[in-house]
Amino acid sequence: MTIIDGKQTAETIMREISREVSAMTAQGERPPHLVAVLVGDNPASVTYVGNKVKACLRCGFKSSVVNLPADIDEDTLLSKIEALNNDETVDGFIVQLPLPPQISERKVIEMIDYRKDIDGFSPVNVGRMALGLTGLYAATPSGILELFRRYNINTEGANCVVIGRSNIVGRPMAELMMQKALPGNATVTVCHSRSRDIKKYCRDADIIIAAIGQPGFVKADMVKDGAVVIDVGITRVDDSSQPKGYRLCGDVDFENVAPKCSFITPVPGGVGPMTIVSLMRNTLFAAKSYRQS
Amino acid sequence: MTIIDGKQTAETIMREISREVSAMTAQGERPPHLVAVLVGDNPASVTYVGNKVKACLRCGFKSSVVNLPADIDEDTLLSKIEALNNDETVDGFIVQLPLPPQISERKVIEMIDYRKDIDGFSPVNVGRMALGLTGLYAATPSGILELFRRYNINTEGANCVVIGRSNIVGRPMAELMMQKALPGNATVTVCHSRSRDIKKYCRDADIIIAAIGQPGFVKADMVKDGAVVIDVGITRVDDSSQPKGYRLCGDVDFENVAPKCSFITPVPGGVGPMTIVSLMRNTLFAAKSYRQS
Repeated sequence: MTIIDGKQTAETIMREISREVSAMTAQGERPPHLVAVLVGDNPASVTYVGNKVKACLRCGFKSSVVNLPADIDEDTLLSKIEALNNDETVDGFIVQLPLPPQISERKVIEMIDYRKDIDGFSPVNVGRMALGLTGLYAATPSGILELFRRYNINTEGANCVVIGRSNIVGRPMAELMMQKALPGNATVTVCHSRSRDIKKYCRDADIIIAAIGQPGFVKADMVKDGAVVIDVGITRVDDSSQPKGYRLCGDVDFENVAPKCSFITPVPGGVGPMTIVSLMRNTLFAAKSYRQS
Repeated sequence: MTIIDGKQTAETIMREISREVSAMTAQGERPPHLVAVLVGDNPASVTYVGNKVKACLRCGFKSSVVNLPADIDEDTLLSKIEALNNDETVDGFIVQLPLPPQISERKVIEMIDYRKDIDGFSPVNVGRMALGLTGLYAATPSGILELFRRYNINTEGANCVVIGRSNIVGRPMAELMMQKALPGNATVTVCHSRSRDIKKYCRDADIIIAAIGQPGFVKADMVKDGAVVIDVGITRVDDSSQPKGYRLCGDVDFENVAPKCSFITPVPGGVGPMTIVSLMRNTLFAAKSYRQS
Protein backbone atom coordinates (compact mmCIF):
# COMPACT_ATOMS: atom_id res chain seq x y z
CA MET A 1 0.00 0.00 0.00
CA THR A 2 1.35 3.39 -1.04
CA ILE A 3 0.22 6.61 0.59
CA ILE A 4 0.28 9.20 -2.18
CA ASP A 5 2.25 12.22 -1.07
CA GLY A 6 0.47 15.18 -2.60
CA LYS A 7 2.55 17.69 -0.69
CA GLN A 8 5.84 16.30 -1.99
CA THR A 9 4.51 15.96 -5.53
CA ALA A 10 3.27 19.55 -5.43
CA GLU A 11 6.74 20.70 -4.25
CA THR A 12 8.35 18.89 -7.18
CA ILE A 13 5.98 20.47 -9.68
CA MET A 14 6.47 23.94 -8.23
CA ARG A 15 10.21 23.52 -8.69
CA GLU A 16 9.64 22.51 -12.31
CA ILE A 17 7.41 25.55 -12.86
CA SER A 18 9.95 27.80 -11.22
CA ARG A 19 12.61 26.56 -13.66
CA GLU A 20 10.30 27.32 -16.59
CA VAL A 21 9.70 30.81 -15.25
CA SER A 22 13.44 31.38 -14.96
CA ALA A 23 13.80 30.42 -18.59
CA MET A 24 11.00 32.86 -19.52
CA THR A 25 12.48 35.77 -17.63
CA ALA A 26 15.97 34.97 -18.96
CA GLN A 27 14.50 35.64 -22.39
CA GLY A 28 13.26 39.02 -21.26
CA GLU A 29 9.64 38.05 -20.64
CA ARG A 30 7.65 39.11 -17.59
CA PRO A 31 7.00 36.35 -15.06
CA PRO A 32 3.39 35.10 -14.91
CA HIS A 33 1.16 37.37 -12.83
CA LEU A 34 -1.77 36.00 -10.84
CA VAL A 35 -4.25 38.27 -9.07
CA ALA A 36 -6.49 37.05 -6.24
CA VAL A 37 -9.67 39.00 -5.59
CA LEU A 38 -10.76 38.74 -1.97
CA VAL A 39 -14.15 40.15 -1.00
CA GLY A 40 -14.53 40.62 2.77
CA ASP A 41 -12.40 38.82 5.34
CA ASN A 42 -13.86 35.33 5.82
CA PRO A 43 -11.05 33.54 7.72
CA ALA A 44 -11.06 30.42 5.50
CA SER A 45 -10.95 32.61 2.38
CA VAL A 46 -8.05 34.61 3.81
CA THR A 47 -6.18 31.35 4.44
CA TYR A 48 -6.86 30.04 0.92
CA VAL A 49 -5.74 33.28 -0.71
CA GLY A 50 -2.64 33.29 1.49
CA ASN A 51 -1.77 29.76 0.35
CA LYS A 52 -2.12 30.78 -3.28
CA VAL A 53 0.12 33.81 -2.80
CA LYS A 54 2.71 31.59 -1.10
CA ALA A 55 2.60 29.13 -4.01
CA CYS A 56 3.10 32.02 -6.46
CA LEU A 57 6.25 33.00 -4.59
CA ARG A 58 7.54 29.43 -4.78
CA CYS A 59 6.92 29.35 -8.52
CA GLY A 60 8.54 32.70 -9.23
CA PHE A 61 5.24 34.31 -10.23
CA LYS A 62 4.22 37.84 -9.49
CA SER A 63 1.05 37.90 -7.38
CA SER A 64 -1.29 40.60 -6.15
CA VAL A 65 -4.30 40.60 -3.88
CA VAL A 66 -7.23 42.92 -4.53
CA ASN A 67 -9.06 43.40 -1.20
CA LEU A 68 -12.64 44.55 -1.54
CA PRO A 69 -15.15 45.36 1.22
CA ALA A 70 -17.76 42.72 2.12
CA ASP A 71 -20.57 45.18 1.34
CA ILE A 72 -19.40 45.90 -2.21
CA ASP A 73 -22.26 46.01 -4.71
CA GLU A 74 -22.41 43.66 -7.67
CA ASP A 75 -21.88 46.29 -10.38
CA THR A 76 -18.74 47.60 -8.72
CA LEU A 77 -17.31 44.09 -8.44
CA LEU A 78 -18.20 43.34 -12.07
CA SER A 79 -16.43 46.50 -13.21
CA LYS A 80 -13.32 45.49 -11.22
CA ILE A 81 -13.40 42.17 -13.08
CA GLU A 82 -13.70 43.91 -16.40
CA ALA A 83 -10.66 46.01 -15.50
CA LEU A 84 -8.69 42.84 -14.73
CA ASN A 85 -9.84 41.32 -18.04
CA ASN A 86 -8.40 44.34 -19.83
CA ASP A 87 -5.21 44.70 -17.78
CA GLU A 88 -2.40 43.43 -19.99
CA THR A 89 -0.04 43.06 -17.02
CA VAL A 90 -2.35 40.40 -15.50
CA ASP A 91 -2.17 36.86 -16.91
CA GLY A 92 -4.93 35.44 -14.81
CA PHE A 93 -7.05 35.92 -11.73
CA ILE A 94 -9.13 34.14 -9.17
CA VAL A 95 -12.18 35.49 -7.40
CA GLN A 96 -12.13 33.69 -4.06
CA LEU A 97 -15.49 32.04 -3.30
CA PRO A 98 -17.86 32.18 -1.50
CA LEU A 99 -19.03 35.72 -2.25
CA PRO A 100 -21.39 37.76 -0.04
CA PRO A 101 -25.12 37.19 -0.63
CA GLN A 102 -25.71 40.42 -2.58
CA ILE A 103 -23.39 39.13 -5.36
CA SER A 104 -24.32 36.53 -7.99
CA GLU A 105 -21.41 34.07 -8.20
CA ARG A 106 -22.68 32.91 -11.57
CA LYS A 107 -22.59 36.45 -13.01
CA VAL A 108 -19.08 36.97 -11.67
CA ILE A 109 -17.80 33.70 -13.15
CA GLU A 110 -19.40 34.43 -16.52
CA MET A 111 -17.79 37.88 -16.58
CA ILE A 112 -14.22 36.52 -16.28
CA ASP A 113 -12.41 36.35 -19.64
CA TYR A 114 -11.89 32.63 -20.28
CA ARG A 115 -8.22 33.31 -21.06
CA LYS A 116 -7.70 34.61 -17.51
CA ASP A 117 -10.08 32.18 -15.77
CA ILE A 118 -7.46 30.37 -13.65
CA ASP A 119 -10.10 28.38 -11.73
CA GLY A 120 -11.45 26.99 -15.02
CA PHE A 121 -15.05 27.66 -13.94
CA SER A 122 -16.27 29.59 -17.01
CA PRO A 123 -18.52 27.84 -19.54
CA VAL A 124 -15.88 28.14 -22.27
CA ASN A 125 -13.26 26.32 -20.20
CA VAL A 126 -15.73 23.70 -18.96
CA GLY A 127 -16.69 23.09 -22.59
CA ARG A 128 -13.09 23.01 -23.83
CA MET A 129 -12.20 20.39 -21.23
CA ALA A 130 -15.21 18.24 -22.18
CA LEU A 131 -14.23 18.51 -25.86
CA GLY A 132 -10.60 17.59 -25.16
CA LEU A 133 -9.31 21.00 -26.29
CA THR A 134 -6.49 22.84 -24.53
CA GLY A 135 -7.59 25.37 -21.97
CA LEU A 136 -7.75 26.20 -18.28
CA TYR A 137 -9.07 23.06 -16.59
CA ALA A 138 -10.72 22.79 -13.18
CA ALA A 139 -7.90 22.61 -10.64
CA THR A 140 -8.83 19.68 -8.41
CA PRO A 141 -9.55 17.14 -11.17
CA SER A 142 -6.44 18.07 -13.11
CA GLY A 143 -4.38 17.83 -9.93
CA ILE A 144 -5.69 14.30 -9.38
CA LEU A 145 -4.88 13.38 -12.97
CA GLU A 146 -1.33 14.59 -12.35
CA LEU A 147 -1.08 12.26 -9.33
CA PHE A 148 -2.09 9.30 -11.53
CA ARG A 149 0.59 10.37 -14.00
CA ARG A 150 3.37 10.83 -11.45
CA TYR A 151 2.57 7.61 -9.57
CA ASN A 152 2.24 5.60 -12.80
CA ILE A 153 -1.26 4.47 -11.92
CA ASN A 154 -2.77 2.74 -14.94
CA THR A 155 -6.32 3.93 -15.56
CA GLU A 156 -6.83 2.17 -18.93
CA GLY A 157 -10.10 0.24 -18.87
CA ALA A 158 -10.31 0.62 -15.09
CA ASN A 159 -13.68 0.68 -13.37
CA CYS A 160 -13.66 4.19 -11.90
CA VAL A 161 -16.38 5.38 -9.53
CA VAL A 162 -16.68 9.12 -8.86
CA ILE A 163 -18.83 9.97 -5.82
CA GLY A 164 -20.26 13.47 -6.20
CA ARG A 165 -21.46 15.45 -9.21
CA SER A 166 -20.35 19.00 -8.41
CA ASN A 167 -19.38 21.39 -11.19
CA ILE A 168 -15.90 21.84 -9.75
CA VAL A 169 -14.94 18.25 -8.94
CA GLY A 170 -17.28 15.35 -9.76
CA ARG A 171 -18.36 16.21 -13.29
CA PRO A 172 -15.02 17.46 -14.66
CA MET A 173 -13.29 14.53 -12.95
CA ALA A 174 -15.57 12.13 -14.81
CA GLU A 175 -14.87 13.92 -18.10
CA LEU A 176 -11.12 13.58 -17.60
CA MET A 177 -11.23 9.95 -16.52
CA MET A 178 -13.22 8.96 -19.64
CA GLN A 179 -11.13 11.03 -22.09
CA LYS A 180 -9.38 9.19 -24.93
CA ALA A 181 -5.92 9.53 -23.37
CA LEU A 182 -3.82 8.35 -20.48
CA PRO A 183 -4.53 9.03 -17.69
CA GLY A 184 -8.09 8.46 -18.87
CA ASN A 185 -9.69 5.66 -20.90
CA ALA A 186 -11.46 4.48 -17.75
CA THR A 187 -15.04 3.24 -17.57
CA VAL A 188 -16.55 5.95 -15.39
CA THR A 189 -19.58 5.83 -13.11
CA VAL A 190 -20.82 8.98 -11.36
CA CYS A 191 -22.74 8.38 -8.11
CA HIS A 192 -24.43 11.12 -6.09
CA SER A 193 -27.08 11.88 -3.49
CA ARG A 194 -29.85 10.32 -5.58
CA SER A 195 -27.97 7.12 -6.37
CA ARG A 196 -29.27 3.85 -4.99
CA ASP A 197 -26.75 1.59 -3.28
CA ILE A 198 -23.52 3.54 -3.76
CA LYS A 199 -21.84 0.77 -1.79
CA LYS A 200 -22.45 -1.71 -4.59
CA TYR A 201 -20.82 0.51 -7.23
CA CYS A 202 -17.83 1.16 -4.96
CA ARG A 203 -17.24 -2.49 -4.13
CA ASP A 204 -16.61 -3.23 -7.83
CA ALA A 205 -14.39 -0.20 -8.39
CA ASP A 206 -10.69 -0.29 -9.29
CA ILE A 207 -10.53 3.45 -8.59
CA ILE A 208 -12.74 5.43 -6.19
CA ILE A 209 -12.70 9.23 -6.23
CA ALA A 210 -14.69 10.53 -3.27
CA ALA A 211 -15.92 14.12 -3.53
CA ILE A 212 -19.17 14.10 -1.59
CA GLY A 213 -18.22 16.22 1.42
CA GLN A 214 -19.30 13.70 4.08
CA PRO A 215 -16.52 12.86 6.53
CA GLY A 216 -15.70 9.14 6.59
CA PHE A 217 -18.34 8.24 3.98
CA VAL A 218 -16.20 5.59 2.26
CA LYS A 219 -15.83 2.67 4.68
CA ALA A 220 -13.65 -0.43 4.45
CA ASP A 221 -16.55 -2.69 3.40
CA MET A 222 -17.08 -0.49 0.31
CA VAL A 223 -13.56 -0.93 -1.05
CA LYS A 224 -12.17 -3.96 -2.82
CA ASP A 225 -8.64 -5.20 -2.20
CA GLY A 226 -6.05 -3.38 -4.27
CA ALA A 227 -8.25 -0.41 -5.12
CA VAL A 228 -6.93 3.12 -5.68
CA VAL A 229 -8.74 5.59 -3.40
CA ILE A 230 -8.59 9.35 -3.93
CA ASP A 231 -10.08 11.50 -1.19
CA VAL A 232 -11.21 14.98 -2.23
CA GLY A 233 -13.21 15.68 0.94
CA ILE A 234 -11.93 18.27 3.37
CA THR A 235 -14.44 19.07 6.10
CA ARG A 236 -13.68 20.96 9.31
CA VAL A 237 -14.88 18.84 12.22
CA ASP A 238 -14.98 20.36 15.74
CA ASP A 239 -12.25 18.90 17.91
CA SER A 240 -11.37 20.68 21.15
CA SER A 241 -8.18 18.62 21.48
CA GLN A 242 -6.73 20.46 18.46
CA PRO A 243 -5.06 23.87 18.82
CA LYS A 244 -7.37 25.39 16.19
CA GLY A 245 -10.46 23.75 17.69
CA TYR A 246 -11.11 21.59 14.62
CA ARG A 247 -9.47 18.93 12.50
CA LEU A 248 -9.73 18.32 8.76
CA CYS A 249 -11.60 15.15 7.75
CA GLY A 250 -11.72 13.51 4.35
CA ASP A 251 -14.58 11.56 2.78
CA VAL A 252 -12.73 8.30 3.43
CA ASP A 253 -12.37 6.38 6.70
CA PHE A 254 -8.61 6.39 6.11
CA GLU A 255 -7.54 4.24 9.05
CA ASN A 256 -9.67 1.26 8.03
CA VAL A 257 -9.64 1.75 4.25
CA ALA A 258 -5.91 2.32 3.71
CA PRO A 259 -4.78 -1.26 4.47
CA LYS A 260 -6.93 -2.57 1.58
CA CYS A 261 -5.66 -0.10 -1.03
CA SER A 262 -2.86 -0.19 -3.58
CA PHE A 263 -2.75 3.64 -3.45
CA ILE A 264 -4.57 6.12 -1.24
CA THR A 265 -4.40 9.88 -0.67
CA PRO A 266 -4.38 11.22 2.90
CA VAL A 267 -6.25 14.30 4.16
CA PRO A 268 -4.56 16.72 4.54
CA GLY A 269 -1.54 16.42 2.28
CA GLY A 270 -3.13 14.52 -0.60
CA VAL A 271 -5.37 16.25 -3.12
CA GLY A 272 -5.28 19.72 -1.49
CA PRO A 273 -1.72 20.73 -2.41
CA MET A 274 -2.28 19.40 -5.93
CA THR A 275 -5.28 21.71 -6.35
CA ILE A 276 -3.15 24.75 -5.60
CA VAL A 277 -0.38 23.54 -7.89
CA SER A 278 -2.94 23.13 -10.70
CA LEU A 279 -3.78 26.81 -10.31
CA MET A 280 -0.09 27.57 -10.74
CA ARG A 281 0.06 25.40 -13.87
CA ASN A 282 -3.02 27.18 -15.21
CA THR A 283 -1.39 30.58 -14.59
CA LEU A 284 1.73 29.48 -16.46
CA PHE A 285 -0.43 28.12 -19.29
CA ALA A 286 -2.35 31.42 -19.54
CA ALA A 287 0.90 33.42 -19.59
CA LYS A 288 2.36 31.22 -22.32
CA SER A 289 -0.77 30.76 -24.46
CA TYR A 290 -2.86 33.88 -24.16
CA ARG A 291 -0.57 36.76 -23.27
CA GLN A 292 -0.70 39.67 -25.73
CA SER A 293 2.97 40.21 -26.47
CA MET B 1 -43.25 -3.62 -23.88
CA THR B 2 -43.73 -0.20 -25.47
CA ILE B 3 -42.04 0.78 -28.71
CA ILE B 4 -41.28 4.46 -28.38
CA ASP B 5 -42.63 6.32 -31.39
CA GLY B 6 -40.08 9.06 -32.06
CA LYS B 7 -41.72 10.03 -35.30
CA GLN B 8 -45.10 10.64 -33.71
CA THR B 9 -43.57 12.46 -30.74
CA ALA B 10 -41.60 14.68 -33.10
CA GLU B 11 -44.81 15.49 -35.02
CA THR B 12 -46.52 16.51 -31.79
CA ILE B 13 -43.64 18.77 -30.78
CA MET B 14 -43.48 20.39 -34.20
CA ARG B 15 -47.19 21.23 -33.90
CA GLU B 16 -46.52 22.79 -30.50
CA ILE B 17 -43.63 24.81 -31.91
CA SER B 18 -45.74 25.92 -34.85
CA ARG B 19 -48.38 27.25 -32.43
CA GLU B 20 -45.70 29.22 -30.56
CA VAL B 21 -44.47 30.68 -33.82
CA SER B 22 -48.01 31.73 -34.75
CA ALA B 23 -48.24 33.55 -31.43
CA MET B 24 -44.90 35.27 -32.13
CA THR B 25 -45.86 36.44 -35.60
CA ALA B 26 -49.31 37.53 -34.39
CA GLN B 27 -47.44 39.97 -32.16
CA GLY B 28 -45.57 41.33 -35.15
CA GLU B 29 -42.32 39.41 -34.65
CA ARG B 30 -40.44 37.71 -37.44
CA PRO B 31 -40.62 33.91 -37.43
CA PRO B 32 -37.40 32.11 -36.40
CA HIS B 33 -34.92 31.84 -39.25
CA LEU B 34 -32.55 28.88 -39.58
CA VAL B 35 -29.80 28.76 -42.18
CA ALA B 36 -28.15 25.51 -43.28
CA VAL B 37 -24.68 25.75 -44.77
CA LEU B 38 -23.99 22.92 -47.20
CA VAL B 39 -20.48 22.51 -48.55
CA GLY B 40 -20.34 20.26 -51.63
CA ASP B 41 -23.04 17.75 -52.53
CA ASN B 42 -22.43 14.62 -50.47
CA PRO B 43 -25.74 12.70 -50.92
CA ALA B 44 -26.23 11.95 -47.21
CA SER B 45 -25.58 15.62 -46.35
CA VAL B 46 -28.06 16.74 -48.99
CA THR B 47 -30.67 14.42 -47.45
CA TYR B 48 -29.99 15.67 -43.92
CA VAL B 49 -30.20 19.32 -44.96
CA GLY B 50 -33.41 18.55 -46.86
CA ASN B 51 -34.93 16.99 -43.73
CA LYS B 52 -34.05 20.06 -41.67
CA VAL B 53 -35.59 22.40 -44.24
CA LYS B 54 -38.76 20.27 -44.25
CA ALA B 55 -38.93 20.42 -40.46
CA CYS B 56 -38.57 24.22 -40.59
CA LEU B 57 -41.56 24.38 -42.90
CA ARG B 58 -43.61 22.26 -40.50
CA CYS B 59 -42.68 24.56 -37.60
CA GLY B 60 -43.46 27.79 -39.43
CA PHE B 61 -39.81 28.85 -39.50
CA LYS B 62 -38.07 30.64 -42.30
CA SER B 63 -35.18 28.57 -43.65
CA SER B 64 -32.40 29.15 -46.13
CA VAL B 65 -29.68 26.96 -47.57
CA VAL B 66 -26.27 28.38 -48.39
CA ASN B 67 -24.66 26.12 -51.01
CA LEU B 68 -20.91 26.33 -51.22
CA PRO B 69 -18.52 24.51 -53.58
CA ALA B 70 -16.66 21.45 -52.26
CA ASP B 71 -13.32 23.07 -53.05
CA ILE B 72 -13.97 26.23 -51.01
CA ASP B 73 -10.94 27.32 -48.98
CA GLU B 74 -11.08 27.60 -45.22
CA ASP B 75 -10.76 31.37 -44.99
CA THR B 76 -13.67 31.92 -47.38
CA LEU B 77 -15.85 29.54 -45.37
CA LEU B 78 -14.86 31.23 -42.10
CA SER B 79 -15.74 34.63 -43.52
CA LYS B 80 -19.18 33.28 -44.59
CA ILE B 81 -19.68 32.14 -41.00
CA GLU B 82 -18.71 35.53 -39.67
CA ALA B 83 -21.25 37.11 -41.98
CA LEU B 84 -23.96 34.78 -40.62
CA ASN B 85 -22.89 35.63 -37.05
CA ASN B 86 -23.45 39.31 -37.87
CA ASP B 87 -26.65 38.91 -39.89
CA GLU B 88 -29.48 40.12 -37.66
CA THR B 89 -32.10 38.41 -39.81
CA VAL B 90 -30.61 34.99 -38.99
CA ASP B 91 -31.44 33.44 -35.59
CA GLY B 92 -29.26 30.41 -35.98
CA PHE B 93 -27.38 28.23 -38.40
CA ILE B 94 -25.98 24.79 -38.95
CA VAL B 95 -22.86 23.88 -40.89
CA GLN B 96 -23.61 20.40 -42.18
CA LEU B 97 -20.81 17.94 -41.35
CA PRO B 98 -18.60 16.31 -42.56
CA LEU B 99 -16.62 19.08 -44.26
CA PRO B 100 -14.07 18.54 -47.06
CA PRO B 101 -10.53 17.67 -45.91
CA GLN B 102 -9.04 21.14 -46.54
CA ILE B 103 -11.34 22.59 -43.84
CA SER B 104 -10.80 22.26 -40.07
CA GLU B 105 -14.16 21.33 -38.55
CA ARG B 106 -12.88 22.46 -35.15
CA LYS B 107 -12.05 25.96 -36.44
CA VAL B 108 -15.45 26.22 -38.10
CA ILE B 109 -17.29 25.17 -34.95
CA GLU B 110 -15.30 27.56 -32.79
CA MET B 111 -16.08 30.43 -35.17
CA ILE B 112 -19.87 30.06 -34.80
CA ASP B 113 -21.37 32.58 -32.35
CA TYR B 114 -22.67 30.47 -29.46
CA ARG B 115 -26.00 32.30 -29.63
CA LYS B 116 -26.52 30.98 -33.18
CA ASP B 117 -24.91 27.56 -32.66
CA ILE B 118 -28.03 25.45 -33.25
CA ASP B 119 -26.10 22.16 -33.13
CA GLY B 120 -24.81 23.05 -29.64
CA PHE B 121 -21.26 22.01 -30.58
CA SER B 122 -19.37 25.16 -29.48
CA PRO B 123 -17.34 25.09 -26.24
CA VAL B 124 -19.62 27.71 -24.64
CA ASN B 125 -22.74 25.62 -25.20
CA VAL B 126 -21.04 22.37 -24.16
CA GLY B 127 -19.94 24.13 -20.97
CA ARG B 128 -23.34 25.70 -20.32
CA MET B 129 -25.01 22.30 -20.58
CA ALA B 130 -22.49 20.74 -18.19
CA LEU B 131 -23.06 23.60 -15.74
CA GLY B 132 -26.85 23.29 -15.96
CA LEU B 133 -27.25 26.76 -17.50
CA THR B 134 -29.73 27.54 -20.27
CA GLY B 135 -28.29 27.39 -23.76
CA LEU B 136 -28.30 25.48 -27.02
CA TYR B 137 -27.86 21.83 -26.08
CA ALA B 138 -26.61 19.00 -28.29
CA ALA B 139 -29.60 17.82 -30.29
CA THR B 140 -29.55 14.04 -29.94
CA PRO B 141 -29.18 13.89 -26.13
CA SER B 142 -31.83 16.54 -25.59
CA GLY B 143 -34.15 14.71 -27.97
CA ILE B 144 -33.72 11.54 -25.91
CA LEU B 145 -34.39 13.46 -22.70
CA GLU B 146 -37.62 14.70 -24.28
CA LEU B 147 -38.65 11.09 -24.99
CA PHE B 148 -38.14 10.22 -21.31
CA ARG B 149 -40.28 13.22 -20.41
CA ARG B 150 -43.11 12.47 -22.84
CA TYR B 151 -43.21 8.74 -22.06
CA ASN B 152 -43.06 9.38 -18.29
CA ILE B 153 -39.99 7.21 -17.88
CA ASN B 154 -38.66 7.66 -14.36
CA THR B 155 -34.89 8.11 -14.38
CA GLU B 156 -34.50 9.00 -10.66
CA GLY B 157 -31.74 6.84 -9.16
CA ALA B 158 -31.79 4.55 -12.20
CA ASN B 159 -28.66 2.69 -13.20
CA CYS B 160 -28.04 4.23 -16.64
CA VAL B 161 -25.31 2.90 -18.94
CA VAL B 162 -24.26 5.05 -21.90
CA ILE B 163 -22.25 3.16 -24.53
CA GLY B 164 -20.02 5.58 -26.46
CA ARG B 165 -18.16 8.73 -25.43
CA SER B 166 -18.51 10.98 -28.48
CA ASN B 167 -18.68 14.74 -28.09
CA ILE B 168 -22.08 14.89 -29.75
CA VAL B 169 -23.89 12.00 -28.06
CA GLY B 170 -22.19 9.95 -25.33
CA ARG B 171 -20.64 12.66 -23.18
CA PRO B 172 -23.47 15.22 -23.27
CA MET B 173 -25.98 12.38 -22.76
CA ALA B 174 -24.12 11.39 -19.58
CA GLU B 175 -24.13 15.01 -18.40
CA LEU B 176 -27.88 15.29 -18.87
CA MET B 177 -28.68 11.95 -17.24
CA MET B 178 -26.70 12.87 -14.11
CA GLN B 179 -28.05 16.44 -13.83
CA LYS B 180 -29.92 17.41 -10.66
CA ALA B 181 -33.34 17.38 -12.34
CA LEU B 182 -35.89 15.09 -13.89
CA PRO B 183 -35.31 13.57 -16.34
CA GLY B 184 -31.88 13.13 -14.80
CA ASN B 185 -30.77 12.15 -11.29
CA ALA B 186 -29.59 8.81 -12.67
CA THR B 187 -26.40 7.01 -11.69
CA VAL B 188 -24.52 7.15 -14.97
CA THR B 189 -21.80 4.87 -16.32
CA VAL B 190 -20.05 5.68 -19.60
CA CYS B 191 -18.60 2.66 -21.45
CA HIS B 192 -16.51 2.89 -24.62
CA SER B 193 -14.00 1.10 -26.82
CA ARG B 194 -11.48 0.78 -23.99
CA SER B 195 -13.97 -0.57 -21.44
CA ARG B 196 -13.55 -4.10 -20.19
CA ASP B 197 -16.66 -6.29 -20.16
CA ILE B 198 -19.30 -3.85 -21.38
CA LYS B 199 -21.75 -6.76 -21.17
CA LYS B 200 -21.46 -6.81 -17.37
CA TYR B 201 -22.31 -3.11 -17.04
CA CYS B 202 -25.25 -3.47 -19.41
CA ARG B 203 -26.73 -6.50 -17.66
CA ASP B 204 -27.18 -4.43 -14.48
CA ALA B 205 -28.61 -1.39 -16.27
CA ASP B 206 -32.14 -0.03 -15.86
CA ILE B 207 -31.52 2.21 -18.88
CA ILE B 208 -29.13 1.52 -21.78
CA ILE B 209 -28.33 4.27 -24.27
CA ALA B 210 -26.35 2.78 -27.17
CA ALA B 211 -24.33 5.24 -29.25
CA ILE B 212 -21.36 3.21 -30.39
CA GLY B 213 -22.07 2.94 -34.13
CA GLN B 214 -21.82 -0.87 -34.33
CA PRO B 215 -24.92 -2.48 -35.84
CA GLY B 216 -26.55 -4.97 -33.47
CA PHE B 217 -23.96 -4.50 -30.71
CA VAL B 218 -26.48 -4.75 -27.86
CA LYS B 219 -27.71 -8.35 -27.73
CA ALA B 220 -30.50 -9.93 -25.70
CA ASP B 221 -28.11 -11.48 -23.16
CA MET B 222 -26.81 -7.98 -22.29
CA VAL B 223 -30.23 -6.61 -21.29
CA LYS B 224 -32.11 -7.28 -18.09
CA ASP B 225 -35.84 -7.78 -18.03
CA GLY B 226 -37.78 -4.53 -17.94
CA ALA B 227 -34.89 -2.34 -19.08
CA VAL B 228 -35.36 0.84 -21.13
CA VAL B 229 -33.23 0.67 -24.30
CA ILE B 230 -32.49 3.76 -26.42
CA ASP B 231 -30.80 3.12 -29.76
CA VAL B 232 -28.83 6.05 -31.19
CA GLY B 233 -27.02 4.01 -33.82
CA ILE B 234 -27.87 4.53 -37.45
CA THR B 235 -25.50 2.74 -39.79
CA ARG B 236 -26.10 2.11 -43.49
CA VAL B 237 -25.68 -1.61 -44.14
CA ASP B 238 -25.53 -2.87 -47.73
CA ASP B 239 -28.72 -4.75 -48.64
CA SER B 240 -29.46 -5.44 -52.30
CA SER B 241 -33.05 -6.38 -51.44
CA GLN B 242 -33.76 -2.75 -50.55
CA PRO B 243 -34.67 -0.20 -53.24
CA LYS B 244 -31.84 2.11 -52.10
CA GLY B 245 -29.33 -0.76 -51.86
CA TYR B 246 -28.93 -0.39 -48.09
CA ARG B 247 -30.92 -0.52 -44.89
CA LEU B 248 -30.48 1.47 -41.69
CA CYS B 249 -29.28 -0.53 -38.69
CA GLY B 250 -29.23 0.51 -35.07
CA ASP B 251 -26.77 -0.48 -32.35
CA VAL B 252 -29.35 -2.82 -30.84
CA ASP B 253 -30.41 -6.28 -32.00
CA PHE B 254 -34.00 -5.04 -31.90
CA GLU B 255 -35.79 -8.28 -32.73
CA ASN B 256 -34.30 -10.19 -29.82
CA VAL B 257 -33.87 -7.34 -27.33
CA ALA B 258 -37.32 -5.73 -27.66
CA PRO B 259 -39.29 -8.56 -25.94
CA LYS B 260 -37.24 -8.03 -22.74
CA CYS B 261 -37.71 -4.26 -22.55
CA SER B 262 -40.23 -2.02 -20.84
CA PHE B 263 -39.47 0.66 -23.47
CA ILE B 264 -37.33 0.56 -26.61
CA THR B 265 -36.73 2.90 -29.55
CA PRO B 266 -36.76 1.50 -33.10
CA VAL B 267 -34.36 2.43 -35.92
CA PRO B 268 -35.48 4.28 -37.94
CA GLY B 269 -38.31 6.24 -36.32
CA GLY B 270 -36.90 6.45 -32.78
CA VAL B 271 -34.15 8.86 -31.87
CA GLY B 272 -33.60 10.27 -35.40
CA PRO B 273 -36.75 12.39 -35.69
CA MET B 274 -36.18 13.66 -32.14
CA THR B 275 -32.73 14.93 -33.11
CA ILE B 276 -34.19 17.07 -35.86
CA VAL B 277 -36.94 18.33 -33.61
CA SER B 278 -34.30 19.34 -31.03
CA LEU B 279 -32.69 21.52 -33.69
CA MET B 280 -36.08 23.17 -34.17
CA ARG B 281 -36.43 23.74 -30.43
CA ASN B 282 -32.94 25.22 -30.36
CA THR B 283 -33.81 27.57 -33.21
CA LEU B 284 -36.93 28.74 -31.38
CA PHE B 285 -34.87 29.18 -28.18
CA ALA B 286 -32.25 31.25 -30.02
CA ALA B 287 -34.95 33.44 -31.58
CA LYS B 288 -36.62 34.02 -28.23
CA SER B 289 -33.48 34.41 -26.08
CA TYR B 290 -30.79 35.97 -28.18
CA ARG B 291 -32.47 37.96 -30.95
CA GLN B 292 -31.50 41.63 -30.98
CA SER B 293 -34.90 43.31 -31.12
